[in-house]
Amino acid sequence: MQIKVDRDLKVPVYLQIRNQIASMILDGTLRAGQPLPPERTLAQSLGINRSTVVNAYSELKADGLVDSRVGKGTVVLSHLTGEQDKEKYSDPPAWSQFLSHTAERSNESLLRDILELANRRDIISFAAGISGMETDPVEALRGIEEEIVSPACRFALNHTPAEGMPCLRESISELMCARGVEAGPEEILVLSGSQQGIDIAARAFLDPGDVVFVEEPTFFSALQIFRAAGARIIGIPVDARGMRVDLLEQALTRYRPKFIFTVPTFQNPSGTTMDLERRKRLLELAYRRNTFILEDDPYSDLRFEGSRVPLLKELDKNGYVIYLSSFSKLLFPGVRIGWINAPKPMVVQFTKVKQMTDLHADSLSQWIIHRYLRSGGLDAHLSRIIAEYRIKRDIMIDELITDPVREMEWNKPQGGFYLWCRLPDDIPYATLMVKAAERGVAYVSGTAFFQGGKGGNYMRLNFTYPSREEIREGIRRLKAAIRETLQAGERNRTQRERKFGEFEVLR
Amino acid sequence: MQIKVDRDLKVPVYLQIRNQIASMILDGTLRAGQPLPPERTLAQSLGINRSTVVNAYSELKADGLVDSRVGKGTVVLSHLTGEQDKEKYSDPPAWSQFLSHTAERSNESLLRDILELANRRDIISFAAGISGMETDPVEALRGIEEEIVSPACRFALNHTPAEGMPCLRESISELMCARGVEAGPEEILVLSGSQQGIDIAARAFLDPGDVVFVEEPTFFSALQIFRAAGARIIGIPVDARGMRVDLLEQALTRYRPKFIFTVPTFQNPSGTTMDLERRKRLLELAYRRNTFILEDDPYSDLRFEGSRVPLLKELDKNGYVIYLSSFSKLLFPGVRIGWINAPKPMVVQFTKVKQMTDLHADSLSQWIIHRYLRSGGLDAHLSRIIAEYRIKRDIMIDELITDPVREMEWNKPQGGFYLWCRLPDDIPYATLMVKAAERGVAYVSGTAFFQGGKGGNYMRLNFTYPSREEIREGIRRLKAAIRETLQAGERNRTQRERKFGEFEVLR
Repeated sequence: MQIKVDRDLKVPVYLQIRNQIASMILDGTLRAGQPLPPERTLAQSLGINRSTVVNAYSELKADGLVDSRVGKGTVVLSHLTGEQDKEKYSDPPAWSQFLSHTAERSNESLLRDILELANRRDIISFAAGISGMETDPVEALRGIEEEIVSPACRFALNHTPAEGMPCLRESISELMCARGVEAGPEEILVLSGSQQGIDIAARAFLDPGDVVFVEEPTFFSALQIFRAAGARIIGIPVDARGMRVDLLEQALTRYRPKFIFTVPTFQNPSGTTMDLERRKRLLELAYRRNTFILEDDPYSDLRFEGSRVPLLKELDKNGYVIYLSSFSKLLFPGVRIGWINAPKPMVVQFTKVKQMTDLHADSLSQWIIHRYLRSGGLDAHLSRIIAEYRIKRDIMIDELITDPVREMEWNKPQGGFYLWCRLPDDIPYATLMVKAAERGVAYVSGTAFFQGGKGGNYMRLNFTYPSREEIREGIRRLKAAIRETLQAGERNRTQRERKFGEFEVLR
Repeated sequence: MQIKVDRDLKVPVYLQIRNQIASMILDGTLRAGQPLPPERTLAQSLGINRSTVVNAYSELKADGLVDSRVGKGTVVLSHLTGEQDKEKYSDPPAWSQFLSHTAERSNESLLRDILELANRRDIISFAAGISGMETDPVEALRGIEEEIVSPACRFALNHTPAEGMPCLRESISELMCARGVEAGPEEILVLSGSQQGIDIAARAFLDPGDVVFVEEPTFFSALQIFRAAGARIIGIPVDARGMRVDLLEQALTRYRPKFIFTVPTFQNPSGTTMDLERRKRLLELAYRRNTFILEDDPYSDLRFEGSRVPLLKELDKNGYVIYLSSFSKLLFPGVRIGWINAPKPMVVQFTKVKQMTDLHADSLSQWIIHRYLRSGGLDAHLSRIIAEYRIKRDIMIDELITDPVREMEWNKPQGGFYLWCRLPDDIPYATLMVKAAERGVAYVSGTAFFQGGKGGNYMRLNFTYPSREEIREGIRRLKAAIRETLQAGERNRTQRERKFGEFEVLR
């Protein structure tokens, strides 16, 4: 009997022994009636304590695999017909043959790569869409422990209705009111992050071949999700005033989309805000063409300057807007709570899909968000992070302006998380990403936000996550990487110009 | 200008005023240049403080909707072309026309109803699949607050990789080893509850029309999820030794399933455990027919008596088993953490689907589970709840045996959460559910666990969630409801017998 013990493994030695012997019994290497070595003998041969072997054997006894017989020691019990072992060895399944169309269409790893990059300590990351953690209101968690261990708050650890904890739905309903929308708690569905809302909408509305309109560029997860659903995705270009509704109108003469997905305020990735006139026009088009609007709004509370523009949901008087938002851009990003605000029949429908997916959002996180909203701390927190993010945005722009890369342009968003930068059309974007990574700086290439390989001459820079000093250093590294790439390009330039579609210079 | 103030609303009065005026400006009722009433006048007419109106007006100013002009007071700013208002009123969308096939196939509300029933205080619920909360190890949360507010543990509030927090994946890998499976951390994907694993598997593997085998009866959420995916679901009957592998073999001559879904240990709902011989035969069939097995294992740690039977994952030497489990049946049910253990290529594939759905499982909950596993408290906790659940099971059976309903049969599961009961074939199950609810007791009708309306003469009784006293009282109520239903049935009995398929009496 061959047994190996590895003390470097985290698995306790007695379990290593148990598992190896169990495996030999179950695959027929050890036959019924066969005795195991005496505990002392095995312990000596392995150089371990006898008690360790005793523990392993008693686990095997509890498993019903062996038994102690007087005079015979520990023997293997009968389990198997034995003759079936001939099919024991088989090739592993060819997994790729089993995959669904959905799985095949979702083979993109961009987002995972971004999250991984953001966690690497040696890289300054402008890639993440994450709030600055140093401003997280951890003080808001004070007292939470006393509460959750007390019987009165035990519901914070129990199941909650699929729609969300009733008290949190009320708090969110009040928050919606502060954003100008009268939404009752029954029109709120609590989500495990607002991205889940895009996924739920895709599952509830999209069949393969359905058309969906998005902004171009748009949030890459939305592209991924709609693509996985098998939808035909039509991009409507964005300029400094938001989605080009004139082009939307044209597109509506050719297509009948299930819905229009938009991030109208401090758009991801372009940072632009759709102005009021376009918002009204967008709604009119939706009413007239009987399509609806999925408004994703994670950033509108983060306005640094300029006048607030009403939400589409606020302007919509006919119930054509389904509204998504999230706390994870404002508070702790790992506390995954977002919400949908929709007409009640759709909340009922979404709840069914949500329930299939994960039953309900994490209860403790719902409780944390609820008590924070009730504490009234959110407004002061928002003022703090708005002040900080504005400074960070300005530092980023300052650093871009100082000894600028002549060929680089960027916008100045009035809020949100991102600066959107444009480089010469023919810049080799893969080379640039590698050179940037070599210098220890990461960003998201524009290609992630367009379809069909377009957008390589854009980059999205997040200014909320890195510290002020990291922003300065990171932009210096980035400019050096861009210069190096452009100079290398000069040398090998082919004269062929590449076109990247209708997206316009923002400023 | 008509403004209404309702002090009973939770919305602050100044926001009520702001929202109503904003709405009138945005829909054109108030035109550009028009003055708002002086603050003092409006305050008097509404019977509120002047400062409340001041607050409302300054919100409107911040929104860019009004401005103060010397000598004119507060006036509406120009925003709109105005003429577009003609399309302001439109019917709301006919939402049902927008739904996807997936949404249409997921129109079941059973699970939500169960969760709601379980939360009603006047009902004794045998319906929920929830652990007994009085045994939750809340003491394990001691110290968590200090940790999460300390900079060293701030990652517990930040994003985690989509695969899960690395330290938790390691802890789960060790837990798998204690369950007899050598699974490296890279073979673990952390889930937001194990139901998400069924959903992810369905999305990764099932196209409409694909065949999937399940036990009959089986976990109702699995039925819902596979149905929503558009799969053809074939049920393989269960008896006291688990899935009838002889019938499985027959079915495999007719169908080529993508996979076989099974809850082999303390099955939901029947409480039965597949014996070792059938497990080995099931694996052989999977190898030979090149189909794989989705093993859902939330209950196997909860064995009250008898010998442990090895997991399918433990017996499988060729990588044909994808294994699902969860902490939410063992610890706090609202802390939604489960996991998949699968071959590494499939973990990569599942991660992509998982990431689209909700980015990653809640970070704080991952941290709570990880530190609990590291504390070593799980074994002692399991001993405690096993002892308690065993007593509860015995109380339930005792109470059923005392003055029994002659026509009722039940099994005695060796572990898990559920007793599975059989009543006469022709019992009107809808009537019975109503009569039980009237008497203040709830259970899940067998129809939830079968397809095609079968199973009405079965009921699933959970014994872990209610208290001991509630079990006694609840079973008394249930027996009374059954007796009443049977007697009413005697009176109106039609002689036609109804057949409920191949499911066999358990004992």
